[in-house]
Amino acid sequence: MKKTLAEIAKAIDGALKGDPGKIIQYAASFEEAGPEGITFAGNKKYLKQIDATKAGAVIVPREFDTDSINIVKTDNPQVAFITVLELFNKPYSLKPGIDPGASIGDNFTHGSGLAVAPCAVVGNNVTVGDRVTFYPGVCIGDDVVIGDDVTIYPNAAVLERCRLGNRVIIHPGSIIGSDGYGFAVDGDQYIKIPQLGIVQIDDDVEIGTNCTIDRATFGRTWIQSGVKTDNMVHIAHNVVVGENTVMVAQSGLSGSVHVGKRCRIAGKAAVAGHLTVGDDVTIGSRAGVIKNVANGQIVSGFPEMPHTQWLKMSLVKRKLPELKKKIAELEERLDRIEKGKV
Amino acid sequence: MKKTLAEIAKAIDGALKGDPGKIIQYAASFEEAGPEGITFAGNKKYLKQIDATKAGAVIVPREFDTDSINIVKTDNPQVAFITVLELFNKPYSLKPGIDPGASIGDNFTHGSGLAVAPCAVVGNNVTVGDRVTFYPGVCIGDDVVIGDDVTIYPNAAVLERCRLGNRVIIHPGSIIGSDGYGFAVDGDQYIKIPQLGIVQIDDDVEIGTNCTIDRATFGRTWIQSGVKTDNMVHIAHNVVVGENTVMVAQSGLSGSVHVGKRCRIAGKAAVAGHLTVGDDVTIGSRAGVIKNVANGQIVSGFPEMPHTQWLKMSLVKRKLPELKKKIAELEERLDRIEKGKV
Amino acid sequence: MKKTLAEIAKAIDGALKGDPGKIIQYAASFEEAGPEGITFAGNKKYLKQIDATKAGAVIVPREFDTDSINIVKTDNPQVAFITVLELFNKPYSLKPGIDPGASIGDNFTHGSGLAVAPCAVVGNNVTVGDRVTFYPGVCIGDDVVIGDDVTIYPNAAVLERCRLGNRVIIHPGSIIGSDGYGFAVDGDQYIKIPQLGIVQIDDDVEIGTNCTIDRATFGRTWIQSGVKTDNMVHIAHNVVVGENTVMVAQSGLSGSVHVGKRCRIAGKAAVAGHLTVGDDVTIGSRAGVIKNVANGQIVSGFPEMPHTQWLKMSLVKRKLPELKKKIAELEERLDRIEKGKV
Repeated sequence: MKKTLAEIAKAIDGALKGDPGKIIQYAASFEEAGPEGITFAGNKKYLKQIDATKAGAVIVPREFDTDSINIVKTDNPQVAFITVLELFNKPYSLKPGIDPGASIGDNFTHGSGLAVAPCAVVGNNVTVGDRVTFYPGVCIGDDVVIGDDVTIYPNAAVLERCRLGNRVIIHPGSIIGSDGYGFAVDGDQYIKIPQLGIVQIDDDVEIGTNCTIDRATFGRTWIQSGVKTDNMVHIAHNVVVGENTVMVAQSGLSGSVHVGKRCRIAGKAAVAGHLTVGDDVTIGSRAGVIKNVANGQIVSGFPEMPHTQWLKMSLVKRKLPELKKKIAELEERLDRIEKGKV
Repeated sequence: MKKTLAEIAKAIDGALKGDPGKIIQYAASFEEAGPEGITFAGNKKYLKQIDATKAGAVIVPREFDTDSINIVKTDNPQVAFITVLELFNKPYSLKPGIDPGASIGDNFTHGSGLAVAPCAVVGNNVTVGDRVTFYPGVCIGDDVVIGDDVTIYPNAAVLERCRLGNRVIIHPGSIIGSDGYGFAVDGDQYIKIPQLGIVQIDDDVEIGTNCTIDRATFGRTWIQSGVKTDNMVHIAHNVVVGENTVMVAQSGLSGSVHVGKRCRIAGKAAVAGHLTVGDDVTIGSRAGVIKNVANGQIVSGFPEMPHTQWLKMSLVKRKLPELKKKIAELEERLDRIEKGKV
Repeated sequence: MKKTLAEIAKAIDGALKGDPGKIIQYAASFEEAGPEGITFAGNKKYLKQIDATKAGAVIVPREFDTDSINIVKTDNPQVAFITVLELFNKPYSLKPGIDPGASIGDNFTHGSGLAVAPCAVVGNNVTVGDRVTFYPGVCIGDDVVIGDDVTIYPNAAVLERCRLGNRVIIHPGSIIGSDGYGFAVDGDQYIKIPQLGIVQIDDDVEIGTNCTIDRATFGRTWIQSGVKTDNMVHIAHNVVVGENTVMVAQSGLSGSVHVGKRCRIAGKAAVAGHLTVGDDVTIGSRAGVIKNVANGQIVSGFPEMPHTQWLKMSLVKRKLPELKKKIAELEERLDRIEKGKV
């Protein structure tokens, strides 16, 4: 595909400085783009070395200027670059239609542009909007409701009665609506508590690969709009994850945790059951949170503490053997003093 | 569905105090139940505030009493409540029969009430008991033997020769009987050791979502009766997990670990290879156990230590920077004394 | 099956000492082998107690000698034993051919010995070599290229354009080529960055169960030859894992990490984004690596430190409450001295 730089600048609402007729054939990274390619420089690190790229053009912030290379000035070069990537790269997609190798239950209601792959299985009384795609091995349980522009990748499942909003992406192998881990204790034995609630996933949520989101015991496990999870993230029953919160790989939330908006939960971090995490909280990697966290806090460690405290603690921790030795020395010196030897 | 309170009391072998003709229409949580609902109060926290519920009736312990609300006295209110939940909630289930979109191998032996969904695949020489359900995408390997009342949820697999007892539940995406991680070292290379054993899962076991239980190298990986695992639990080859032990999300057991009965292994905890964990052991969240643990111990931390010690240690750990400063001060004071300045 | 000891010795290029006509009927572990079985003793622990085995013959190192039992001397008894295991154990395998319940896309090119199970789905323009096996529920995306002697187990997926070498094993539920976790920040929202690269997996790689290997943003996520991962291992976009490196269960590598050759990454360990780990590095269990690691280092802890330092630190850490108490005592003693009471 070929586009002129003028066409690209228009597509991203950018201000072009350079050759409007320059032909661009692809978009690539700063390091990999060549004379027919376009790239972006979104921060000082790349802007400083803009002469080093071999790209035919660079998308830059509005305030940046240079004469040495074709530039397109935009408000957010990285977001603009995503638009350009989409210009040049036709995404993989399934052929619309229901493959004869799929299995569809009774009362399936769907909009336009539906694509159901072979070996996808849709239960009874399922309702989906426009442009919904189920890849091979997808399992949709009875009474599920799904919005528009939703893609569910191979071998993922959305179990009975769960609800997905618009523009939701479920990556392969992720399970939405499995039973919560709830048992009553009867002597030595654990008796299963029926898990009667659902999972509700709001608009623009992306769930990574091989994640698990359990249905609520009653009511709903609720993933609010704009949440993005990485792979192997575990979200237990009755959890609420607030808008635009992100969860990195192998992190987990125990039952009935409420996480606020715009939080960042780093890799392998976890929050213990029934806690409340405020808005705009950052939970560091491997942190194990065992108390509520107030709005805006940055915490790390297990048990969690303010991140700056954790940094200082970590520096001292590695010197513990020296500290111990020093304490022993102090003790000896005190012994000598007390015995009147000094 | 409607039931009188007398009918409910009878179903749970409870002693009713209040209106036996009271009509109950559903069961719900303490907070959510309304005048037509029934709930339970299983501990002091809820019993204290029993007047706060809007429920039409409350299931309580035998020894509790009040005149202000309909109550049903039972030995174990939570367990009784599960029975009531099951009265009011018809569980989702597959239609009995083998869907024409399923694939069944040679010599399939099964009892009554079998339900096999579309896109479930059963290998050769498989034997299953009564009331067995395979959801879509389930894969059962050759020579597998499964008992009665077993449910295997979407996209889970039980691989060749593994054996499941009665009333076993395998949640979606879990893999039973994948190869153990065993290699012989040959110079720089790792040579695969064939994994020739099986996984044996006894009665009343529930395996959470996206778990992995590897087959033994020889012999069996053995999950004993009553074990319940949460999601993303990893159990390596040749592990034995004793009766009624529970394992919380993202925990793991390395190869050849033996865990006793009635243990509680918390979230993200792990046990190193070839260790023995006794009966009635609690392993705290994120603990990394690297030595054998005796019966009845409660351990936390990495390396593990008694939980009470870990609690004290954790309190001091966060104050390490202050401790370091204090040591420096003591040193200065000693310096001054030794120089005769005090 | 029956083999003479002479036949077995020949098959493993071993030197027999004992009865060449001895009939061997199976291979088993040191503890479990009986008079008709053969086992191996690969290290001093087992060689010392060689008289304790009831096996009919034992494979031993070249330098070992005994008159008390039939032995076969080899360079690497464990590797030789794998060969013997394969003599006696016919592996489970699918019937060659494409099952009518599989779904095959356009332009599928394959060599001899192909086996595709029911409910496996192969996309368009897929090319595979000889003796390739797709188990039930396997999903192969468009434009995938796969070498010879590759086995992909149930419910695993290899998504569009990814490339697998020869003798690759993908265990059940693992997803190769899911989208990397990449977003541009636009105010409060995260905008998905298209993930346009691939995953390349070289020869002799084995990926454990329920793992996730994300495709690169551009270019490739690259798993080099001989890498073996355990279960639930997460490898993010643009990671490179060097030849013959092993990764134990529940470990993870963040985006753009480069790991060298012959590394050992233990269970639940992780490496933060964009770091470089050299060759021959050992990362201890639960380690959280936040700086580059040089060739040959052994690191543990979070943040990581040399393993020997971590061991010493861990010993002191558990005694922190005592250390704190001791510091308080020293302070009191100093107080007394300074007040002239001593």
